[in-house]
Amino acid sequence: MNREERNHHPARKVRFVVMYDGTHYHGFQTQEDSRLPTIQDQLHHVIQTLTGESVKIICAGRTDAGVHARGQVVDFSTSSRIPDERFPLAMNALLPRDITVIQAETVHPDFHARFDALGKHYRYTIYNRRMPSPFQQRYSYQVFPELDLERMRAAAAALIGTHHFGAFCASGSVVKRLERTIWRCTLTPDEEGCIHIDVMGDGFLYNMVRIIAGTLIDVGKGKIDPRSMPEIIASRDRTQAGTTAPPRGLCLMKVWYTPQPVMNGSQQ
Amino acid sequence: MNREERNHHPARKVRFVVMYDGTHYHGFQTQEDSRLPTIQDQLHHVIQTLTGESVKIICAGRTDAGVHARGQVVDFSTSSRIPDERFPLAMNALLPRDITVIQAETVHPDFHARFDALGKHYRYTIYNRRMPSPFQQRYSYQVFPELDLERMRAAAAALIGTHHFGAFCASGSVVKRLERTIWRCTLTPDEEGCIHIDVMGDGFLYNMVRIIAGTLIDVGKGKIDPRSMPEIIASRDRTQAGTTAPPRGLCLMKVWYTPQPVMNGSQQ
Repeated sequence: MNREERNHHPARKVRFVVMYDGTHYHGFQTQEDSRLPTIQDQLHHVIQTLTGESVKIICAGRTDAGVHARGQVVDFSTSSRIPDERFPLAMNALLPRDITVIQAETVHPDFHARFDALGKHYRYTIYNRRMPSPFQQRYSYQVFPELDLERMRAAAAALIGTHHFGAFCASGSVVKRLERTIWRCTLTPDEEGCIHIDVMGDGFLYNMVRIIAGTLIDVGKGKIDPRSMPEIIASRDRTQAGTTAPPRGLCLMKVWYTPQPVMNGSQQ
Repeated sequence: MNREERNHHPARKVRFVVMYDGTHYHGFQTQEDSRLPTIQDQLHHVIQTLTGESVKIICAGRTDAGVHARGQVVDFSTSSRIPDERFPLAMNALLPRDITVIQAETVHPDFHARFDALGKHYRYTIYNRRMPSPFQQRYSYQVFPELDLERMRAAAAALIGTHHFGAFCASGSVVKRLERTIWRCTLTPDEEGCIHIDVMGDGFLYNMVRIIAGTLIDVGKGKIDPRSMPEIIASRDRTQAGTTAPPRGLCLMKVWYTPQPVMNGSQQ
């Protein structure tokens, strides 16, 4: 979508915050093979049912097959007059139970969920027990033996800041600028046996969080020395970092934007 | 099983700790209609595959359809020589992914998972947000508007101690002695929007935790005055307490036993 198209808009632009369990979907984005169900397909379909319009949804983060979201943000233009506060209820009544709209807001017509994102929070969850848990299998990556959390934290600290993340980008990616800034990367164990890796930054390359998770797991197992992290980053070479952890452990938690201009009195 | 049968035993009695997502099962116990899958059926089937024996599994708490467990305890007698530490791995390789054995231990031949239980911990989880969550729908009961936690805590305090719990027992139950002791009943909100009701006690009547949860929810909504709890208990009348909360929010967390005598050197 170019600038000219962005300035020509129907009556209203709507922003949704969406949660989904990605287990049964082939990622967010509509696939060429229309037999593969995606989150975007489901949203398009329900919005069409509600408004009669064939809208084009833009998302903040194009999550892969099997990846989950607790705070995906999408936008679309519509002439519908469904009030903001009724939109989530109307959507949820028609969506499958593994996708829910938790918030809707009319925003400035120029708002763009991806271009306007200031940063994102992804969480990667490891299940660090010997026996699998029926409650964790869809939402975490089971790893055993016990990981060395202090080693992993030392390695994570090396990721903070602005770096060329070529070593943490899936080979074959066509993105040109590989500099990104990581604001925080924390590791938090919980009482159920999980370790949550929370990564926040201004943007993420293809598979970047999953490669970070795989590398930190290799550090936690003793396969990679945490002191070699600066070298791995400096190499800009994908083969120097660890494996790519599987998608089911990944969740898009939050997307940050600048405060939006007030629209028709309904926003803060 | 009478005492005489308990004293006549094959070589070994094994105790498992079992986790399960009860969503797709008709409760723990084998049903008369064998087309209804149960947790017990699955365990019997896999033990038979591993040992060639048709064993009879005893469980600590006969959970209903849709109820989950993180710490169900079962026992069975076997002549199998599969070592304790290999049993969970062997079981989990054959069990469906929504049931896992997380611990196995050879115990005294007289051990009985139900009769020997000193107490149990059940957790009832409420999801207290306006919009449903794809991650919570199988494991919690969604309630809105926001519940008054302080009122609920005041009501929960009245349950502590030894009482006749006739008002908190499903009508039609054939149990005769309705006195039970509740040791603790706490309410803990988490960052995802859940309220966990943790109830620990020496034993529970049929539907007791779900009726406690339903009653505390009615208190949290303002429908029941927390100061009327002693009266409700004293009434011994099921119609005086609140509704029975749905099974999906309930989970058997833990069962307590006295320390077991040491068997063949493999226990502490």
